[in-house]
Amino acid sequence: MASNIFLFWGSGSPPCWKPLIVLEEKGLTYGQKLISFSEKEHKGEDVMKLNPRGQVPTFRDGDTIVNESGAICDYLEYKYKDQGCCLMPEDPEVRGKVLQRVHETQNLNKALIEGVVYYQFRTKEDAIDEKYLNSKKKEATEELLRWEGYLEKEGPESYIVGKDFSMADVFVFPILAFGVRGKLDLAPFPNLDSYYKRLVERPSIKATWPPHWKESEGKDFFKGV
Amino acid sequence: MASNIFLFWGSGSPPCWKPLIVLEEKGLTYGQKLISFSEKEHKGEDVMKLNPRGQVPTFRDGDTIVNESGAICDYLEYKYKDQGCCLMPEDPEVRGKVLQRVHETQNLNKALIEGVVYYQFRTKEDAIDEKYLNSKKKEATEELLRWEGYLEKEGPESYIVGKDFSMADVFVFPILAFGVRGKLDLAPFPNLDSYYKRLVERPSIKATWPPHWKESEGKDFFKGV
Repeated sequence: MASNIFLFWGSGSPPCWKPLIVLEEKGLTYGQKLISFSEKEHKGEDVMKLNPRGQVPTFRDGDTIVNESGAICDYLEYKYKDQGCCLMPEDPEVRGKVLQRVHETQNLNKALIEGVVYYQFRTKEDAIDEKYLNSKKKEATEELLRWEGYLEKEGPESYIVGKDFSMADVFVFPILAFGVRGKLDLAPFPNLDSYYKRLVERPSIKATWPPHWKESEGKDFFKGV
Repeated sequence: MASNIFLFWGSGSPPCWKPLIVLEEKGLTYGQKLISFSEKEHKGEDVMKLNPRGQVPTFRDGDTIVNESGAICDYLEYKYKDQGCCLMPEDPEVRGKVLQRVHETQNLNKALIEGVVYYQFRTKEDAIDEKYLNSKKKEATEELLRWEGYLEKEGPESYIVGKDFSMADVFVFPILAFGVRGKLDLAPFPNLDSYYKRLVERPSIKATWPPHWKESEGKDFFKGV
């Protein structure tokens, strides 16, 4: 059956990866275009027409256009709630916990990606302020320890919230994988390490693995975390 | 009836104001404590026990603890969906639009609050880089023009999405009001101006107006926007 769903996305971008995982978990058929950031395809006419901000993800489902990553995930889970994996538990208490962890990934994103990776990515090598970078690495370690504690509390073989994969995992995994791509060593965080290794084998994640990550190695951003 | 709902909040903080508006729109009874940032009460034992990050909002509903602002709003709307005002429309297309605008407020927040207000708030007066500040004010103007366009498209007397107040308004209004408190002049944005004036009179907003805003005037942060 032809699908009305179409996603423009960029390889390795956590905001793009999240809706891809949801589409796979829901078993939905979708059209897609992988855009090249270096070719500035996110400013191309086909994207701009749907998303005047010129960003990916850019998403449509028939006439419904949704472009913010978290909004796409929520939209898909709500509209297709009876299809595939249920990502938002119905019990309000469990759902509250999933929502809390989903929104809390802003902190994980800020500590790992903005604080450590983007700072080094955007600063010329000889202009790196080592003292500042070390303070950011310390914040990343502290943030990782929080999530390590959450998994510890959930018990062995758990997901971020309980025994079922949920929207919290959709939000956490791409950020964690972005770190690992940047040589973040998870060995000092045994629960995160085991969680990461299990998730890597999940079909929705294998199917959406950033293509350019398969072809080249990432840079080392996380020494000392 | 005694309520199991309790919220710790700070006056004028948009992340705290959002759940307060939702509680009022839902007509829920709730306990609350207004914390003082200057007295560092957000690091107090009662907050830290529920929220180890030591931030407000901090929220509980019986045994369910939810502390991220957006998560609290989602949680309340879901658990109490049949009470008071419906903030998340059931139709998937309209809901998709509300979700899009809700998540898009990150951009409004970044442009108005982080870019313009916090930069000036955190920088010593003689260290302000006027060129940088002007570029941030320009970004704020551009972002306001986007939202002005959204309202224009919705037509006269509209809310952010259509003719009904929704979660999108819960997310937009506190940021806009934060700007107006900082002397943002909405006259060049007639739709936003009329929207703001209507919302100021809404009972849920009057009931939750930041107490310290009634007592003192804000600083001028937005000259030239």
